[in-house]
Amino acid sequence: MEDGDATPEQRAREEAVTDAVLRSLRTTPDPRLRVVLESLTRHLHAFLRDTRLTEEEWRAGIEFLTATGQMCDARRQEFVLLSDVLGVSMQTVTINNPACAAATEATVLGPFFVEGAPEIPLGGDIAQGAPGEPCWVHGCVRDTDGSPVPGARLEVWECDENGLYDVQYDGERTAARGRLVADAQGAFRFWALTPVPYPIPHDGPVGALLAATARSPMRAPHLHFLVQAPGRRTLITHIFVAGEALRTAGDAVFGVRESLVREFLRQAPGTPTPDSRELGDRAWTRVRFDIVLAPDGA
Amino acid sequence: MEDGDATPEQRAREEAVTDAVLRSLRTTPDPRLRVVLESLTRHLHAFLRDTRLTEEEWRAGIEFLTATGQMCDARRQEFVLLSDVLGVSMQTVTINNPACAAATEATVLGPFFVEGAPEIPLGGDIAQGAPGEPCWVHGCVRDTDGSPVPGARLEVWECDENGLYDVQYDGERTAARGRLVADAQGAFRFWALTPVPYPIPHDGPVGALLAATARSPMRAPHLHFLVQAPGRRTLITHIFVAGEALRTAGDAVFGVRESLVREFLRQAPGTPTPDSRELGDRAWTRVRFDIVLAPDGA
Repeated sequence: MEDGDATPEQRAREEAVTDAVLRSLRTTPDPRLRVVLESLTRHLHAFLRDTRLTEEEWRAGIEFLTATGQMCDARRQEFVLLSDVLGVSMQTVTINNPACAAATEATVLGPFFVEGAPEIPLGGDIAQGAPGEPCWVHGCVRDTDGSPVPGARLEVWECDENGLYDVQYDGERTAARGRLVADAQGAFRFWALTPVPYPIPHDGPVGALLAATARSPMRAPHLHFLVQAPGRRTLITHIFVAGEALRTAGDAVFGVRESLVREFLRQAPGTPTPDSRELGDRAWTRVRFDIVLAPDGA
Repeated sequence: MEDGDATPEQRAREEAVTDAVLRSLRTTPDPRLRVVLESLTRHLHAFLRDTRLTEEEWRAGIEFLTATGQMCDARRQEFVLLSDVLGVSMQTVTINNPACAAATEATVLGPFFVEGAPEIPLGGDIAQGAPGEPCWVHGCVRDTDGSPVPGARLEVWECDENGLYDVQYDGERTAARGRLVADAQGAFRFWALTPVPYPIPHDGPVGALLAATARSPMRAPHLHFLVQAPGRRTLITHIFVAGEALRTAGDAVFGVRESLVREFLRQAPGTPTPDSRELGDRAWTRVRFDIVLAPDGA
């Protein structure tokens, strides 16, 4: 039965339940909490009524949420994954980073950012022993009016060629992440690894949901950036590798924006590197990423 | 910022995220799962956009859901409590038990129903040692056309005078619950306990939510019924005690319906009982509850 088939008496009964919950929220002392809970109540109840959710489906939902909570520990945040695969994370990012002139677009932080990554000098290598193909990354941090942002702080992080971040290995090794400071012209440059596709953790309830919807758990290959400068809105974003993996597998968390896709230019073994680093018989890639920061509060 | 303040470009970006999630669900093999997930996605994203949910609020939500999952174990279902206090349980009951002529209204099952309660003869006492004021309960099970339903099966359960169900005590004691069979005229009668108000478990995340909204954790005093008969829709309901507790404390789970409120008539000590049971100097109550079952599939 669809909502439209319900009799007026039945509709009135259903509305009465929603109204009773909304009335109960009137006592909420914090006005913002009241607004959030009222909206949540309206949308949750509308979801139930629109779908005519059965009691069996309700029970399945309770069991799914319970299993999701019980999968969480210090190293695994299954509710963040759930938020990610339903696009809730990306929608929250979009709402909180409104379009602002030519400012670089934001995307999801993801679960693998770690505070206190090592300081890397400009031109240094963030890989720190993580396996993968070398990738030269360079660009400039600018304002929306085109002025350089000298001394902008950048944090970058990524998975290795096995598709794993350092924190997914046992032990305390830090690799494939680092903090850099742009120079007086806002320019930055460093060695990293050519990003590869990898699956989000999919051995839990969220993996079961992806399987039930015949969706891929793969993330499009990307390199994470977090860029900060005084007076500018903090930018959390990725750059994505243009090409096959992006086209075929898509992105399980809906993080891709066209404006963030970059050509990672393939360099044959023996091609001279920008800083004369000797790579022997290894191929490498290079990518340029110019970053535009919105003003703070924009 | 409210949704209405967003620029057209910003609105387009936000809609694009929702559309990407909806597109990803097109591969879902089970058409019903697809319908449910599409509606869930639309309502979740609309909630985020309507409230302009901040990233800090999103994190608080993730932490709340995680704590709720981690509170669950074999004896405690915190997600059912969350569903209850947001009226989600009662809305689901309402949707799945559409109004049908004079059929008795349904309400929530609650977390304290247990399979395999003891068989109690008509006129017997379900208390089985649970402390509380005796209450004589009687009535008749009928069809929507007024015909008696001979042999209807009833399950009844309630808390004791301490506000606790048997399963909330340590040990395996069964008390204040039982199964009965109506007689050839559909009539039933039994001794129970006068229902008292009690709080839902409120030492977890759901209790914190109630506190943040200045809501009471109390349930209105009630006696649970589950009534089954061949060819009739199974009825899960309560009767509520008319009076002060109902008026002042309300009901934390929105289970009360006017049609389910009954006068529990107070009887002074020494008042003769319907079955000549000897209660000495104890007061008791009596209540009549006539039950009307909808046809199956109505």
